This record gives sequence, structure tokens and C-alpha cells, in this order.
Amino acid sequence: MAEAGDPVAGPAPPPPLLLGRGRPVGELGGGTQASSQRLLAYSDALLSIIATVMILPVAHTKIHPDQELNESVQQLLATRIAVYLMTFLIVTVAWAAHVRLFQVIELIDDVLALLNLACMMLITFLPYTFSLMASFPEVPFGIFLFSSCAVVIGFVQAVIVMYAFHHPYLLNHQIQVSENQAFYKYHILKIILRGPTLSFFAAIFSFFFIPMSYVFLGLIIFFPHIRHLTNWFTSRIDGREQELPLESFTFYLNEPLSKERVEAFTDGVYAIVATLLILDICEDNVPDAKEVREKYQGHLINALSEYGPNFLAYFGSFVTVGLLWFVHHSLFLHVTKATRLMGLLNTLSLAFIGGLPLAYQLTSKFAKKSHNEIETIQVSCVTIFFGSIFQFAIWTAALFYERETLHPYARYGGKEHAFMFAKLALYPCVSLFAFFLTCILGELSATIFHLMQIIVPFAFLVLRIFVRIALMAIKHIMSLSRPRENVSEEEEACLSPPETLS
Amino acid sequence: MAEAGDPVAGPAPPPPLLLGRGRPVGELGGGTQASSQRLLAYSDALLSIIATVMILPVAHTKIHPDQELNESVQQLLATRIAVYLMTFLIVTVAWAAHVRLFQVIELIDDVLALLNLACMMLITFLPYTFSLMASFPEVPFGIFLFSSCAVVIGFVQAVIVMYAFHHPYLLNHQIQVSENQAFYKYHILKIILRGPTLSFFAAIFSFFFIPMSYVFLGLIIFFPHIRHLTNWFTSRIDGREQELPLESFTFYLNEPLSKERVEAFTDGVYAIVATLLILDICEDNVPDAKEVREKYQGHLINALSEYGPNFLAYFGSFVTVGLLWFVHHSLFLHVTKATRLMGLLNTLSLAFIGGLPLAYQLTSKFAKKSHNEIETIQVSCVTIFFGSIFQFAIWTAALFYERETLHPYARYGGKEHAFMFAKLALYPCVSLFAFFLTCILGELSATIFHLMQIIVPFAFLVLRIFVRIALMAIKHIMSLSRPRENVSEEEEACLSPPETLS
Repeated sequence: MAEAGDPVAGPAPPPPLLLGRGRPVGELGGGTQASSQRLLAYSDALLSIIATVMILPVAHTKIHPDQELNESVQQLLATRIAVYLMTFLIVTVAWAAHVRLFQVIELIDDVLALLNLACMMLITFLPYTFSLMASFPEVPFGIFLFSSCAVVIGFVQAVIVMYAFHHPYLLNHQIQVSENQAFYKYHILKIILRGPTLSFFAAIFSFFFIPMSYVFLGLIIFFPHIRHLTNWFTSRIDGREQELPLESFTFYLNEPLSKERVEAFTDGVYAIVATLLILDICEDNVPDAKEVREKYQGHLINALSEYGPNFLAYFGSFVTVGLLWFVHHSLFLHVTKATRLMGLLNTLSLAFIGGLPLAYQLTSKFAKKSHNEIETIQVSCVTIFFGSIFQFAIWTAALFYERETLHPYARYGGKEHAFMFAKLALYPCVSLFAFFLTCILGELSATIFHLMQIIVPFAFLVLRIFVRIALMAIKHIMSLSRPRENVSEEEEACLSPPETLS
Repeated sequence: MAEAGDPVAGPAPPPPLLLGRGRPVGELGGGTQASSQRLLAYSDALLSIIATVMILPVAHTKIHPDQELNESVQQLLATRIAVYLMTFLIVTVAWAAHVRLFQVIELIDDVLALLNLACMMLITFLPYTFSLMASFPEVPFGIFLFSSCAVVIGFVQAVIVMYAFHHPYLLNHQIQVSENQAFYKYHILKIILRGPTLSFFAAIFSFFFIPMSYVFLGLIIFFPHIRHLTNWFTSRIDGREQELPLESFTFYLNEPLSKERVEAFTDGVYAIVATLLILDICEDNVPDAKEVREKYQGHLINALSEYGPNFLAYFGSFVTVGLLWFVHHSLFLHVTKATRLMGLLNTLSLAFIGGLPLAYQLTSKFAKKSHNEIETIQVSCVTIFFGSIFQFAIWTAALFYERETLHPYARYGGKEHAFMFAKLALYPCVSLFAFFLTCILGELSATIFHLMQIIVPFAFLVLRIFVRIALMAIKHIMSLSRPRENVSEEEEACLSPPETLS
């Protein structure tokens, strides 16, 4: 079994089948095969939207402005937020399995495309099962429906694997030429079927002991990370890396999240969040024709000025979403590989970003004098803080293995290191500052809060200048105290072609 | 001026700045530049979602099931559909301008990224101005607001152009080395500012003659196509191609819609349409806990069986959206270049695809016995028919210039030609067939309609077998009647490396 590692770990020979990404590749074995790139882009778009769109029912929970955020409303909100979070996490797990599956399968034909669409259809149905679960926590049917869906998804994915291994020209070239193809097949099947097996047990337990079902559901989300963590600990304690053939396989797949697909998924989430904001504006803030005629004597502009704070809230929220995307974009420009931990942190960051439409709804609804204004601003601050602090954590995680994961510019001492730090630290600091302002002042207008949000982009530009001046000052001081050659060596390291990129 | 064509039309030297897509490229002139790929993917996602999401207010128009589709409801629906279509078309125009802009600008830095986000923010605000316009058609403020937005968008894009030409290392390499840079700058500015100038006139006219404003708005959408058409006719009449320096420039940009971005935009639209469906299911079809207790004695499954037709409608609609994406995907696998006409047809196809959530809402709302059941099925059929017939038209348009636009496999006589024809013809035929069924039978259950939708994917698989048998039969007859060499020559043409791909 040990020799299996060699053909896999070695440098990849260029796959001879692939003429070019996204073009038909040729006729072999009967059908037209094609690179799976666009299928994956479409799947990423679908999955990211479905993960995020479940915030809409949360954001649209009817709360009367005069009403305090009382217990029944809080409970309703909590239920819906739970649905949103469960959907988000489970869809992310399904997405990660999908990424892994299509790292093994590199070309698709019509049958695979249709099977993949069937899989997507079932995944988009999952949010409904969560809605049932959250509305009827004591009835086993919701969890049973979810588990059945997960089992069917697993079945479809298993069919995809079987089909692809039955038509080996669809597979990754390294697996195609490997002698251990059968072993790889069962290994990938094992990974694919882990979630569905857990769901199967959840379905069985749902009929006589529901809490156990929820434990299984939790396991689906956290099992890969727990396993990864225990592996990491055992390798630390034993002092040696695990060298099983299984590991040599996962070494080949040691980039469990391809950077491109992480970016595509992230873009989808940010795009849908930014768009949900304007949807709310269009549905809620167009005045009624009759009202304008009677209350404002036909003066549309007067009627619209009522909504002023909402527009401010919209622009403030859009700027925040846009800039958080911008920070993520800047960060991933310098990331060369996404590790599993970085993927997890990214997911957590996105889960909070997905909560921004809720924060927007709250602040815009309570914009006009209300007892809850300060609470809603605090919710916004907390959401933004966690969304941005997890982005910061991605960078920290990347710095731990900076040789593998980061472009030399962004490593310690790299040219962009300081500026990247400043960019990533800006939003956590601003949101924390705003949060403390709400605590100290006891009264902070939402208008001021949104104005703060709109001002932040200028802070980015000022930051750039500020960081450059600070770096120049440091360099100047350094060059006075350190010998000259040291500095030029560091500069050379930054300018030399990066070794980790090939 | 004539020599400007040469450096532009010649084969492109590899741009020395570009290390790799999506990676930081280097420090020049102060900031970090990077390939714009991800910025464009994010912009495509934002624009496609914003174009499509405005179908939600249409689909969520409150119609009581017992109520006939009477005049006032019809008027409300018509208003909202107008908003949706205007948004869709205008956003597509803005997207096309964006595509053109970022064909000239190949690298981005922080300032460009932030300017682009500002541009996106203004574009996502446009649907709101349309909502105002549609609700208050006789008040000039809506159209004035829209026009102001368009002018500001034009201004921001002009700033982007000025900034990029001021930092020439951001530009496309061919323009970078050209001597006529200033000419190109004014040419691209002219293209970018065409829409905003028309909007400016629309804003002025809005105060004293509103119909004229609407004419200007219509011009924004159709002007490029009208101009293209007149150019085409004059070149036909004169019998010669226009050889102005302007044309030599647009020859370089003669792929006004890059195939990748057309695909990305299309994927976004299909993904959001598929996802809006489940959102409706989650919001409308979770039974109320109290109702279940009182009406169904706590039997959740009995309560859910009420919604059976809705689930069927969901799966039917999802299958339709998924397969229409699949057809588009199959088609664009064989497309090597998207012409302007193909882009227009694609937009029209997408506008109808975007209407599918409305069709879903109608059929699922009137699923239980209603006077309007047959009308809603007809609406669905018409939507699907137009969505798919425009896809067919894309192919027809591509076949006119097949040497430039199609992969040899899909051309006349190519191996995939017959199957592509069958794939593209399937949905127009099926929807037409269903439409005529409704006319003849006078009564057709929505259930049967949705079952038909779900059966279609199997038709695709059967189609493949059917086409292959037919082709084999034809080939067999041909080989009997024709000399052998003729057939092998044709086969060789199909298997030889495609000349249009490089």
C-alpha cells in the first residue's frame, strides 16, 4: 500500500485530455466531456445564495416599532436565527463535500451534469426541512425529512462517484494513471457517505429520542474538524506525522478547499447580502399613492423625506458589505492556499456577514425614536465585529503556516504585511469603538452610526497614506541603527519570485 | 489615423506584467496591482442578482385565491412587471458597459476596487428609482432620481477611466504600448458617457414633458443595438466594411461581451431564480403550530399534505430552471465567441427565465381548484417557451457566423450538431405542446403540468439515445449511397484540431 503515495505526491504531469478550461475536450467513450469549471461556478452560486437567503425570513419578522423586543418576539427571532445558522453551516458542509468530490472528478458529461443538478435540487430543499424543525421542535417529522434528504443526497453523490470511476477518463489524471484506483474510490465514497450515515442514525433516533438526533446533526457539521483536531493533537503528542496510505491520499487532497471555490462561494454570499438590502428598500419604502395624495398633498419628495433614515441605513450597510468584501479580496490576493482551518474561519465570518440584512432591518426599523435604538445599533456592531474579526483570524491562521499559505508580500516583513494588518484591523476596531460609544453615551442616533459607516472607506485611503508614512519612518530609523545590507536583503526576499507559487 | 489599427489588430504579445490570474502582480507606481478577475466575478454576481431579484415584488403581489385576475390586480401586476423588465434591461446595459470598461483595464488597485464598489452601490439603487417611477408615473421625481443616478454612475466610470489612463500599467497591454493612447481614452470615454448623457436629457425633460424622458430611457437600452444594426445595413448596402480608425479599435474590442462574463452573469441569474423558489416555500408553506394543533389534532404530516401541490410545483420549477441552465451550458460549451446579437438574445432569454418565480407563484397559488388554473399554466408555458426559444435563437445567430462563433463539433455537419439542435428544441416544443393542451382540453390540472416538468430530464436522456440511433441510421444509409472516402473526410474535419481555438 505504501507505494501508492509516490505517483500521487509527485509533481503532476500535465493532463493530456484537457485542451482548455471550459471548452469541449473531445469524444471518448461515447459522450462529450467538458471541464467542470462552469458547473462548479453555478453550484457555488446556488449554494452560497441558498446558505444566505434564509436570513430573509429572520429579517422580515414582523415587529411593531412601538413594541419592545419582548419574549415572544425574541423566541420567534431565536427560532428563525437558529434555522438560518443551521442552514448556513449544513450547506457549507455540503459545499465542502462538493468541492472534494469535484477535485477527484475533473471532467463532466451530460449524465454527471444532470446528477449534479439533482443533488443541487435536494440541497436547496434543506432550508425547508429546517423551517419545519424550528417550527415544530417536538415533532420528529422535520428532522426525519432532513435526514432523508441528506441520505438521498449522499446516494446521488455516491452514484456520481461510481459513474465517474466507471468512466475513468472523467477523473483527475493522477487517479486515472494510479494503480490504486479502487482504493481511492472507496476512500472518496467513505468521505462522501460520512454525513449521510450520520443523518441515517439521526432519522432513526428521531422517532424515539429527538435530542440524540440533534447530537448527530451537530456531528455532521463538526465531525471533520474534530477529526482534524484530534489528528493534529496525536501527531503533536507522538511527535511524528501520520504516514498511512490514507494520509498520502489526503496529502494529494491536502488542499481540501480550493482557493478559487472559496472565493466563488464568498463572492456569492457577499453579493446576495448586498442585494437583499435593496430588495427591502424597494418593498418597504415606496410610499402609497393614496397616502401621498392625502397626507402630503401630492408632494412625493416630502413623503420620501420620511424615509431619509432608511436610505442612510441602506447606503451605510452597503458600504459596510462592500468594504468587508474588499478586505476579503485584498486578503485572498495574498493567500496562495486555503487550509481547513482557514475555511472554517471563513465560514464563520460569512455566517455573520449573512446576518447583516437583519442588522439593517433592525436599525432602519427603529431609526425613528424608539426604546430599542441603542440595542439595534449594538446588534449591528456585534455582527460587524464578528464578521470582521473572523476575517482577521483567517489571516492569523494563514500566518501560522505562512510559507505554504501566503504570498511573500504578506508574510512577516513583506511589503504589504503592515498594510494588510491595518486593513484587517480597521473594522473590528471601528465596530468595537462604536459599541463602546453606545455603552458610554447611553444614547446614540442611528443616523450618526450610518454616517460613521459611510465615512469608513475614506479611512481606508487615509490608512494607506498613514501606514506608508509610518513604514517610512520605521525604515528611516532602522536604516540609521542597522547596517545597510540587512535591509536590502529583506527587500530582495520580497522581490524574488515566490517559491510556493508554481 | 489609419496606422492605429496595426498594433491593435495584430497578435497579442504576452503581457509581461501578468504573473497569473488572481495573484498580486507587483509594485509599480506605489500600490499593489492585481488581476481584476475576482472583482469582475463579484460584479457579475451583484449585477445578475440585482437584475433578477426585482421579480420578487411581482411574485409576492397579494392575490386572493378566490379573486379573479381582475383589472386592478392586473394593473398592479403590469406596473411591477414593467419595473422588473426595466430593471433587467437597464442593469444589463450597465453590465455591458462594465464588461467593455474592464476589457480596457486589466489590472486593478485599491482605488479602482473602491471606485468600482461605489459604482455597484449606485447600480443596485436603480431598482428603487424604477419602483418610484412605476408607482408615480406622472410625478417627475422618479425619473429624475434615476437619471441623476445614471449620471453619477457615468461620472464614477469616467473617473475610473481617467485614473486607469493616468496609471497606464493598469491598462490592457495593447493599449499600453500603443501610440494612440489618448485617442483610445476619448473613445472609451465616449462609449461610457453615452448612457449618462441620454439620462441627463431625460432628467431635464422630466420636468416639462415626461413622455420624452421615457423615449430617452428607451434609447439608452436600444441605442447600441440600433447603431449596430444601421452600421450593418450600411455596410451591406455599400458592399464594404467600414474601415475607420474607430472601427479598427472596436475590431480589437469586437468581442463586446466576453464569453466568460456572459456565462458568469447567466449563472447568477439562474442561481438566484432557483433559490427564490425555495424562499417562497420556506415563507409560505410552513404550517402554523396553532393551526396544526386545532385543525389536524397535532398531525404535522396531515397538515403538510395540504401543501402537496406546492412541493410538486417547486420541484417542477426547479427542474425546469436547472435544465434550461443545462441547455445554456451545453450551448456555450460549443460557443467560442459571443457576438452582440447573441448577447442581446441571451438577455431576452434571461429576462423570461427571471419571470419563472412569478409563474411558480401563480401555479402554486391557484393549484387548488380555481377559475384561473388554466390561465396560470398558460403563463408558465409562455414564460418557458420564450425563455427557451431565445436560447434557440442564440444558436441560430451563432450558426450565421459559425466559423467565428462555434466550435467545429457544433457547426453544420459537426458531431454534436444534431444533438444540440434536439436539446435546444426540446423545451420550446414541450411548452408549446403543453400550451395547446390547455387550449384543447379546456381543463388541465396543475399537478399534471408539474409532473410533466419533472419528467423532462428523462426526455433528455432518451433524446440522446434517439438522436444517436437516428444519426447511425442516416450514416448507414449515406454510406450505402455515397462513396466511402467522402464520409471519412467529413469525420476528419470533425476530429481535426479546431482552427478558431488557439
